[in-house]
Amino acid sequence: MKSAKPKALHGIAGRSMLSHVVAAAQAMGADHIAVVVAPGRDAVIQEIRAIAPDATIVLQHERRGTAHAVLSARDAIGVDFDDLVVLYADVPLIRPDTLGRLRAALADGSAVATLGFKAADPTGYGRLVQSADGSLTAIREQKDATPAERAIDLCNSGLMALDGTIAVRLLSSIGCDNAQGEFYLTDAVEAAVAEGRHCAVTITDEAEVQGVNDRVQLAAAERSMQARLREAAMRGGATLVAPDTVFLSYDTVLGRDVVVEPQCWFGPGVSVGDGAAIHAFSYLEGATIASGASVGPYARLRPGAAIGENAKVGNFVEIKNAEIERGAKVSHLSYIGDATVGSGANIGAGTITCNYDGFNKARTIIGAGAFVGSNSALVAPVTIGEGAFIGSGSVITDDVAPDALAIGRGRQIAKAGWAETFRAEQKARKAKPRP
Amino acid sequence: MKSAKPKALHGIAGRSMLSHVVAAAQAMGADHIAVVVAPGRDAVIQEIRAIAPDATIVLQHERRGTAHAVLSARDAIGVDFDDLVVLYADVPLIRPDTLGRLRAALADGSAVATLGFKAADPTGYGRLVQSADGSLTAIREQKDATPAERAIDLCNSGLMALDGTIAVRLLSSIGCDNAQGEFYLTDAVEAAVAEGRHCAVTITDEAEVQGVNDRVQLAAAERSMQARLREAAMRGGATLVAPDTVFLSYDTVLGRDVVVEPQCWFGPGVSVGDGAAIHAFSYLEGATIASGASVGPYARLRPGAAIGENAKVGNFVEIKNAEIERGAKVSHLSYIGDATVGSGANIGAGTITCNYDGFNKARTIIGAGAFVGSNSALVAPVTIGEGAFIGSGSVITDDVAPDALAIGRGRQIAKAGWAETFRAEQKARKAKPRP
Amino acid sequence: MKSAKPKALHGIAGRSMLSHVVAAAQAMGADHIAVVVAPGRDAVIQEIRAIAPDATIVLQHERRGTAHAVLSARDAIGVDFDDLVVLYADVPLIRPDTLGRLRAALADGSAVATLGFKAADPTGYGRLVQSADGSLTAIREQKDATPAERAIDLCNSGLMALDGTIAVRLLSSIGCDNAQGEFYLTDAVEAAVAEGRHCAVTITDEAEVQGVNDRVQLAAAERSMQARLREAAMRGGATLVAPDTVFLSYDTVLGRDVVVEPQCWFGPGVSVGDGAAIHAFSYLEGATIASGASVGPYARLRPGAAIGENAKVGNFVEIKNAEIERGAKVSHLSYIGDATVGSGANIGAGTITCNYDGFNKARTIIGAGAFVGSNSALVAPVTIGEGAFIGSGSVITDDVAPDALAIGRGRQIAKAGWAETFRAEQKARKAKPRP
Repeated sequence: MKSAKPKALHGIAGRSMLSHVVAAAQAMGADHIAVVVAPGRDAVIQEIRAIAPDATIVLQHERRGTAHAVLSARDAIGVDFDDLVVLYADVPLIRPDTLGRLRAALADGSAVATLGFKAADPTGYGRLVQSADGSLTAIREQKDATPAERAIDLCNSGLMALDGTIAVRLLSSIGCDNAQGEFYLTDAVEAAVAEGRHCAVTITDEAEVQGVNDRVQLAAAERSMQARLREAAMRGGATLVAPDTVFLSYDTVLGRDVVVEPQCWFGPGVSVGDGAAIHAFSYLEGATIASGASVGPYARLRPGAAIGENAKVGNFVEIKNAEIERGAKVSHLSYIGDATVGSGANIGAGTITCNYDGFNKARTIIGAGAFVGSNSALVAPVTIGEGAFIGSGSVITDDVAPDALAIGRGRQIAKAGWAETFRAEQKARKAKPRP
Repeated sequence: MKSAKPKALHGIAGRSMLSHVVAAAQAMGADHIAVVVAPGRDAVIQEIRAIAPDATIVLQHERRGTAHAVLSARDAIGVDFDDLVVLYADVPLIRPDTLGRLRAALADGSAVATLGFKAADPTGYGRLVQSADGSLTAIREQKDATPAERAIDLCNSGLMALDGTIAVRLLSSIGCDNAQGEFYLTDAVEAAVAEGRHCAVTITDEAEVQGVNDRVQLAAAERSMQARLREAAMRGGATLVAPDTVFLSYDTVLGRDVVVEPQCWFGPGVSVGDGAAIHAFSYLEGATIASGASVGPYARLRPGAAIGENAKVGNFVEIKNAEIERGAKVSHLSYIGDATVGSGANIGAGTITCNYDGFNKARTIIGAGAFVGSNSALVAPVTIGEGAFIGSGSVITDDVAPDALAIGRGRQIAKAGWAETFRAEQKARKAKPRP
Repeated sequence: MKSAKPKALHGIAGRSMLSHVVAAAQAMGADHIAVVVAPGRDAVIQEIRAIAPDATIVLQHERRGTAHAVLSARDAIGVDFDDLVVLYADVPLIRPDTLGRLRAALADGSAVATLGFKAADPTGYGRLVQSADGSLTAIREQKDATPAERAIDLCNSGLMALDGTIAVRLLSSIGCDNAQGEFYLTDAVEAAVAEGRHCAVTITDEAEVQGVNDRVQLAAAERSMQARLREAAMRGGATLVAPDTVFLSYDTVLGRDVVVEPQCWFGPGVSVGDGAAIHAFSYLEGATIASGASVGPYARLRPGAAIGENAKVGNFVEIKNAEIERGAKVSHLSYIGDATVGSGANIGAGTITCNYDGFNKARTIIGAGAFVGSNSALVAPVTIGEGAFIGSGSVITDDVAPDALAIGRGRQIAKAGWAETFRAEQKARKAKPRP
């Protein structure tokens, strides 16, 4: 990846690849998750603790192959679980129901179930060699394959499920008598067959098991995941006018009859109620948008933004940690942070909540039905009462009583003819040769 | 569609699917349009009245098949028109010239002309069975087709033209002796052939007759329509730097040598003059942009925005119902609504026209050559005279005479050392253990 | 192109097509560049002088074919160079290493080396006819080709390298005995073969030699160039979350572990340091961004913007000709132009530097650690001292001493109950029937 960041922590659709894989294991119904990590990867360990606090973390001190990696977790996997499912942080698109199908093969009596895919170009992949009845007899690496085996387009994804009651024994029987001197998980098939046990192949799409080894592949995985999320959103009743230009997170929730215009970005933690409109160029994260609300174009909703029913957030508006209550409007060029805007209130263009003094953040409370004139600065902590009216261009530092008018601005003065004189002077100055 | 909105009203390229189809019929030169609507679809009826006030609206009280639907309009179609053309609101990409080709087949003597397409995957479609001379002998549904007929990849789009002088009679002869007990329009072919009349096939692209039954298909139709609009714009002499990221409306007009940067959105009613530049991230609707103007990036032009020759609207600027006259500049972070900005005027960054007091909208008039200093609020109704100068940060509530200077802002005061003390206090406070 | 602009000057990835081709020649190591231009194309000549001041500019007064065009530069090419390489301004994607391969064929003894490509659809292209040993025997135009020759899918790109010592003589031997009466460069092959000299074919991808004759092809060339630039950026260690939506310039530099979110635009002259984040909807040109900085979403950096280490430029912020020093923050809705923002300074939302009075631009200097309250206007020329504090909503016209507080705003006044009365009046007025 040419990165200072561990590969497993590179992100797709709003969370790390590792997180996607752990979530797939959880959704599959894993009783226990063990994660094998190379030493010194503290950031990886921190991520695991955050997303799966109960997971066992195992350090693989030497890199001696995939079977060796799995056996690093010998204490965790030797507890007589029904199934052992082996996943990889850099194969992040795996779906829980595919894992369910893989485990179903074990339930049907197989000792090992391998996840295969039909490769558009099988060159370089291990081939899944099957007997006439479809059972798996071997996994053949490219370099060891006969011409007939090379013609096989059913390839090994690397993902595997093993009968939990014999997994440790099978894996322990694998040797390292190969060029690299490594212990390969794929040899579990041979070991099981040698014992007369049945091995199975479960097939899935190539896209689902694409690996990520560089940033071009990372972008390809993101593209696949986005396609999946977008289709699910549309099937659920949301209109994405131009799905290819809308970026969703793994947990984005879009209600029925939500319309999302082109070029929108949904970071983690966004939920949009039925019938809301998300206009183009909106950038949302950690935000809740109620039914019938209108957001954007060019709306930035940051974490803690809660937009009420039929409320409106317009263009060039940033909302952070603030409730915009039912029917309130913040239509243009405003920053509303650490605030509550009461229902039906109207916030004029260019309004800024001044919520920070360099040390403290303070709240602005705007009552229901209040009218804040354009280009006002509300210096928090401050409360604008219900129904109050703030004159345009005011700086408001003191609380305003309900239904009162408050104005805080300079008085207008005029100097007749000044501009004409100024222009004449400037033109003369510019015309004058430089000394 | 999983929608509270009738399918026909879902939109593509700035208008409803229904509207696209009605427009195709109009462009084809239809003498009369009849629209068959299910009862209770008031929103559909409202749309028809808006887009085709002369259309006959017919309610189909029972849903008994496509022939039954067409015959619901018996009064409208039995008036001895030359041709009857049957269209569907959910087949929205149909082109007028394709309909012209369909009608040409009638003019050549056919009683029925069916619109067919070569399907990439014909499974599920009705097949068009032709005799050796190419005339249509039958439309065979998938389930009734012989293996030989299933091998046909020429499929029925559903669109059909019938000889108007016999259409009602032909359609009335169709029975409902089938599993669903419905009257099928496709049986018109059999009825015509039984009378010894000729039926024809006109072929078009599969994309043009794609149907829309869910939001994934709606997005696909939008993609096809956008591709069509973008290519027409480029062939007309506009540069779209990244056409796939530019979204046009059905009526967008782009002049010669217009350059549109990536990621722009054109809602309905936008016209751009020769040589104008539309920079990235612009969102335009109902706006007129004259030759040589520069718009964006991040410009939002709302209905009624009229940008004059060589005028400039810059970043984070919203213009609504306002004329920006020749050579005037609104370059940054401004809201100009219900206003006129005279030719050559310069509007500083952060200028806001305060056009709304919660009840009324009022206009701001800025004279030619005026200079409005940055971060000013102009409280409408207000007039800034020609050549006048507004000091930065002013709130202007009274009219300003031509060539005058107006300033309305607080006087600057200073407290030496205050910030140092403030920081020391804040640090001390933060350091103090909480009680 | 349907354009008032000469075709060669239409742009791809931040510079003209002509410029791309000249740069390829320079990168190939050309000792001398001669550009053949039609008369009256002053803008083309200006562009050549800007990008390759040493190039010879030759006017082709009559358009008499490609060989005639090359011979227009007879004085420049007859100087006994080793190689003569013929390029076209409307074949802009050519890579220097492909030109290197072309020249290598000359070094291996060929008199002429033609650049060919396998065409997906060869119809209309000249075919490269080879002998059994792969040497080129003829270039056959579509209309002159035998059926066997038409089956050849190896086509002529038009690009050609000739042995410089015989180029003028070979080209001079070409006649114009054809329907158009033109002198064709392709006839150089026949001329060389007639002399018993060897001609070679070098093969490249069709995409690399696509020509640009209209705006649809211009968009296709842009797409190809962008794909190339994006892949190089990713292979270099930058993450492009959605590469298809990020637009780079020919000279964009992205460091390692830079993350670029979707929908960003890089104009010419942008360099981004390691680990910096470019958030969605950012529009950058002529800007330098140091390591660890965070830019956007919705950041517009104009030429001369220099963003320091770990500095932050947030949403709806425009920076022009200004240094934002290490750790400083300009987070929201601001215009900072012709300014220096010292390290660690915090610029509040809605801050505007008023750098222009209609005639002059002046600078704003903000000292390290200063705190500028929200919605302030800083009227340049003005200096805010280190550690100074500006109250929200201030208009600052005079210098502020280090560590001082400055405030320039109106005093807040209130009128109790005013808003209630106002609303009652307005409602009554609206309820009143119009006279």
